[in-house]
Amino acid sequence: MGSSFGTIFKLTTFGESHGVAIGGVIDGVPANIPIDMEAVQAEMDRRKPGQSAIVTQRKESDTVQFLSGIFNGRTTGAPIGFIIPNDDQRSKDYDHIKDVYRPSHADFTYEKKYGNRDYRGGGRSSARETACRVVGGAIAKQVLEKQGIDIVAYVDQVGEVKLSGAVDYNEIENNPVRCPNAVDAKRMETLIKDVRKAGDTIGGSVICEINHVPPGLGEPVFDRLHAELGKAMLSINAVKGFEYGSGFECISMRGSEHNDLFNEDGSTKTNNSGGIQGGISNGMPINFRVAFKPVATIVQEQETLNRKDEIVKMEGKGRHDPCVVPRAVPIVEAMAAMTILDFFLRNKTVQL
Amino acid sequence: MGSSFGTIFKLTTFGESHGVAIGGVIDGVPANIPIDMEAVQAEMDRRKPGQSAIVTQRKESDTVQFLSGIFNGRTTGAPIGFIIPNDDQRSKDYDHIKDVYRPSHADFTYEKKYGNRDYRGGGRSSARETACRVVGGAIAKQVLEKQGIDIVAYVDQVGEVKLSGAVDYNEIENNPVRCPNAVDAKRMETLIKDVRKAGDTIGGSVICEINHVPPGLGEPVFDRLHAELGKAMLSINAVKGFEYGSGFECISMRGSEHNDLFNEDGSTKTNNSGGIQGGISNGMPINFRVAFKPVATIVQEQETLNRKDEIVKMEGKGRHDPCVVPRAVPIVEAMAAMTILDFFLRNKTVQL
Amino acid sequence: MGSSFGTIFKLTTFGESHGVAIGGVIDGVPANIPIDMEAVQAEMDRRKPGQSAIVTQRKESDTVQFLSGIFNGRTTGAPIGFIIPNDDQRSKDYDHIKDVYRPSHADFTYEKKYGNRDYRGGGRSSARETACRVVGGAIAKQVLEKQGIDIVAYVDQVGEVKLSGAVDYNEIENNPVRCPNAVDAKRMETLIKDVRKAGDTIGGSVICEINHVPPGLGEPVFDRLHAELGKAMLSINAVKGFEYGSGFECISMRGSEHNDLFNEDGSTKTNNSGGIQGGISNGMPINFRVAFKPVATIVQEQETLNRKDEIVKMEGKGRHDPCVVPRAVPIVEAMAAMTILDFFLRNKTVQL
Amino acid sequence: MGSSFGTIFKLTTFGESHGVAIGGVIDGVPANIPIDMEAVQAEMDRRKPGQSAIVTQRKESDTVQFLSGIFNGRTTGAPIGFIIPNDDQRSKDYDHIKDVYRPSHADFTYEKKYGNRDYRGGGRSSARETACRVVGGAIAKQVLEKQGIDIVAYVDQVGEVKLSGAVDYNEIENNPVRCPNAVDAKRMETLIKDVRKAGDTIGGSVICEINHVPPGLGEPVFDRLHAELGKAMLSINAVKGFEYGSGFECISMRGSEHNDLFNEDGSTKTNNSGGIQGGISNGMPINFRVAFKPVATIVQEQETLNRKDEIVKMEGKGRHDPCVVPRAVPIVEAMAAMTILDFFLRNKTVQL
Repeated sequence: MGSSFGTIFKLTTFGESHGVAIGGVIDGVPANIPIDMEAVQAEMDRRKPGQSAIVTQRKESDTVQFLSGIFNGRTTGAPIGFIIPNDDQRSKDYDHIKDVYRPSHADFTYEKKYGNRDYRGGGRSSARETACRVVGGAIAKQVLEKQGIDIVAYVDQVGEVKLSGAVDYNEIENNPVRCPNAVDAKRMETLIKDVRKAGDTIGGSVICEINHVPPGLGEPVFDRLHAELGKAMLSINAVKGFEYGSGFECISMRGSEHNDLFNEDGSTKTNNSGGIQGGISNGMPINFRVAFKPVATIVQEQETLNRKDEIVKMEGKGRHDPCVVPRAVPIVEAMAAMTILDFFLRNKTVQL
Repeated sequence: MGSSFGTIFKLTTFGESHGVAIGGVIDGVPANIPIDMEAVQAEMDRRKPGQSAIVTQRKESDTVQFLSGIFNGRTTGAPIGFIIPNDDQRSKDYDHIKDVYRPSHADFTYEKKYGNRDYRGGGRSSARETACRVVGGAIAKQVLEKQGIDIVAYVDQVGEVKLSGAVDYNEIENNPVRCPNAVDAKRMETLIKDVRKAGDTIGGSVICEINHVPPGLGEPVFDRLHAELGKAMLSINAVKGFEYGSGFECISMRGSEHNDLFNEDGSTKTNNSGGIQGGISNGMPINFRVAFKPVATIVQEQETLNRKDEIVKMEGKGRHDPCVVPRAVPIVEAMAAMTILDFFLRNKTVQL
Repeated sequence: MGSSFGTIFKLTTFGESHGVAIGGVIDGVPANIPIDMEAVQAEMDRRKPGQSAIVTQRKESDTVQFLSGIFNGRTTGAPIGFIIPNDDQRSKDYDHIKDVYRPSHADFTYEKKYGNRDYRGGGRSSARETACRVVGGAIAKQVLEKQGIDIVAYVDQVGEVKLSGAVDYNEIENNPVRCPNAVDAKRMETLIKDVRKAGDTIGGSVICEINHVPPGLGEPVFDRLHAELGKAMLSINAVKGFEYGSGFECISMRGSEHNDLFNEDGSTKTNNSGGIQGGISNGMPINFRVAFKPVATIVQEQETLNRKDEIVKMEGKGRHDPCVVPRAVPIVEAMAAMTILDFFLRNKTVQL
Repeated sequence: MGSSFGTIFKLTTFGESHGVAIGGVIDGVPANIPIDMEAVQAEMDRRKPGQSAIVTQRKESDTVQFLSGIFNGRTTGAPIGFIIPNDDQRSKDYDHIKDVYRPSHADFTYEKKYGNRDYRGGGRSSARETACRVVGGAIAKQVLEKQGIDIVAYVDQVGEVKLSGAVDYNEIENNPVRCPNAVDAKRMETLIKDVRKAGDTIGGSVICEINHVPPGLGEPVFDRLHAELGKAMLSINAVKGFEYGSGFECISMRGSEHNDLFNEDGSTKTNNSGGIQGGISNGMPINFRVAFKPVATIVQEQETLNRKDEIVKMEGKGRHDPCVVPRAVPIVEAMAAMTILDFFLRNKTVQL
């Protein structure tokens, strides 16, 4: 019963990596919004495998089929059902992990929780599920665009390589890393390739910025805007940390330097708040950062546990990402878009 | 409509800093649990003002009155209603901020959202509200204890002073900082006092550990255990970041070093996972870290905005915490306890 | 976890018949609504015991104390917490039922469900809990009034005595039965008195009408307007049935006579629909009818079961209502008001 | 945002009458339950058009395709996604109603609410949507069966023809009306045929009985078992009323005759309570009755309103049911099954 996200704009997803299809239902979509199907598919393509030399080369077409809720090119207000067929349902590739719990994968925990496990490609625990989030996010983005709200995410670190040059938003989609600086992007790309050659994987981080959010979004005291953004991000596969505004750096700051002083127009001179005060947007750009761990599947021999409680040797097979952050960028944006839209809708009832 | 936390074990709170009382309703408490009232009050006392020289000296008795749901010393299964009267309801102390938006406070955002503001001590945005969370957490802790689950939090950093010595859990409540090392605690205490003398405030961080959680807690894909823990922590006043297990350090790690290899008993040799895999507890200790910003109220003259869109000078009055982390420790524990108990209950229906 | 009602406008209640107090939290109240405290109390007085010769003569002052969410006479948008102290907490009156399950009361089912029972006056199962609903409803009514929506309920049947004369809305509060026809009211009053003299109780029914509801309220397909109204009414103590518009009479009607033909202004010539089509309000008056069973406590000797599985004799004590419908009228209105307001708010996000 | 039903066992549906497909997601299904696919399809067949001479002769295969959540014949605990393709997507049949609001249909209210309308066959307001409920109910039934709980519904009235003979449960599926008495079934069938010949439609009612429900299901005070059953039933197309146990007859009963006296084993001598006391099951059979209005589409000329606010003449086309109750029986059972299972799961957390 954890398959739904959102309060008013609500995405419910289903599907396993190697089942017939994955898909979902988007409820609470405002009516009469024109939907640009190509824009939806373009978001899917930003997430899909095989898009560049530094991501997994698995073959998935990732074509979304809408089944309801859109009529004559516009949302009707009825729930939008959709499916994304799984092209490759061969499960025999996974016989070698049928009785083995891969280290730092969800094999062990799923089996403990449910008493069973769909071992084919990770089943429900596979990041394939995030394709459905991108569909929901693409619809949310189109609603937000009409409100003037835009969202952009990019990679700011891969391993020890940090974004150090100037941020050029136009550069983000120009390189396979999705780093907003061409020089840094190249360094990150080189690192990812080196790591892959070594049969290893590496972590990274993504920054997300949301602009033109009106003041007032966020619901005290538990559903603070940043708390839901944090939950949204932490619900993405491989995420280990979330910070917004000054983030963890706030620990060593004084109040006198951390406080964001006002301008006369209500904007602030600095933005340590990350666009959020008391859990409510203040009209400044919202920004946050998300940490992704290195992919657990490595092409090296590792010891692991099997279902007979024996330690056995195994080696990762298949075509996995050496680093998830390039493909994580559209997922971060999608989760951010659904979160912001949900709060935008929730805020409609605060003042009559 | 953001005043409730939890799915089955659900806390709903109300109340402003200077209203008649704050309070709440705890629904979904399992029946027939003996409640130790003194233990509840002891948790309240860990959070209350005036407990040491390094916290605010405001006068609040913080005595919780239970109104329902407990009969003959045991929970009945009916909702537990409770109130905590506000001893000091004088609002005249706040006349100076009636028409001013304090920097990095929620004054501006509340007014933008609601079209009004209870300016007395921050109203609903005041951290006074967290006292209700401690009540909910104290009840949750008593249920969890019967399941053998225990939770402990402590301060690991204040400003630039990090916990560097050995962790001694018995030391935590021995010093006013709630740091588990006496030497480090002293250094932190000194820093806090220095900062206060300068009329300033400082940030800090809290680590929380949860032991003996059975494998299986957490609900994929959106309600991952760490995603809800993250939301729980980010919903606490002044929190700017959350990480679990390897946290932000995972960014620069390789998969080969990050993977937690199994022992034959299903435990792991390392715990970069922080006790959670795929959003589900794996039986290892759960650990996470929370970043708190420096308190926004400083006893220095600052420029700020008033309701006429003028920049004016103001200086913080009143008796505020120079650093929130010592008092945040029981709040972190309370939110963790409610989150874990909620997932414990949700997990009861997964296998019949 | 069944103590909350509503989606956006949400009432959460707590409290037992003979505890310290009952109370609740109302979340999702729109901000800046002026609250007329006397009007709230007037609703409470319509429900309270001792108001006339045909209701229970128990002594309860039923004074509501608001603790939060209202500042300077207006709602702030923060949750409204409130309590209603229980004047009479004497539990010794209930020693005679401590070990006995009264027939057609909730004693048996509560004990089976929770493994315990607060036997004092029915504990949580007592209709005393409905006082909190009247508070929530009184707030909701004041919000609805500003939207031009009004709600009126009245008694249309007591035992076999049906409302047969003309409906005069001004008459409703003029007689202790709350029947909108003075002659019928007298007949009903006489019946109630006769039944009481016989130590017995009797059923009745209440009609509710909601006027000036705009078209568009209700959320297909599960949260149809009449489905939530039905749930709201069926959640009131002693309710056994709910029908709207043509209700159960529709069973023997033909489509050609049941269909409501349109006028040019979108209104309909008849109103078998009861103001709702496809689960959505159509702008016509909403009407429904609710059946209340005879009170289970009778002043006659009955056989019943005790906790040792023995059949024993018992006789009802205390001062109970011989018929609940006169006091049920404000409760029906309160639940209707909260339901309509919740849908009014939910509808705010359907079209941007 | 009204497309989901249930709290733990939760069905979310999507789809319009003439879209690509309808479908849904069932979340919260306990893991490791073997699923009998033929039994699921058999339930679908009980609802499908064309099954007998007295129901609509539309051509729909109603074949459900499961996409996830079932692996090796058993539930995995992951959400079950499914679709039911719409065989007939021809929308030209509906051009005649494109600009007309049919009387007592949802055309007018959908357009008022959403600002648009998928006019093809009623779109989202079509009873075609109930096919998804039957899928959810069929899964729920299989879980309940393992708990020994069984559910049976039947037609007890069509127009003025009431079930008057003895109830023979084995007879229900033997006749096209689904009446448990062969003689009464014949009379009902004759009436339905007569009504159809006249181009008219007729109402009816369905009784549902749920046996072997353990005591303790239901969540006071708002989520009473019968309140959720009532909501479940009232959410079905064409339902106008709900009563349980003594139902509307309780109005004219005395407490002394209405009270259900106990036997020593905790069962009761009568069952006016309908198996529910205080909103909680008491272990006796649960029973309730549901009123269905006559279908609004009649094959007679009627006046109606068009989008230009003109009164125009129209006549129903297409192949509609003259009476919905025969096909409503499996839908009533499905909604009952999901409701009971949801409460069964909710009750798992009440006592540890």
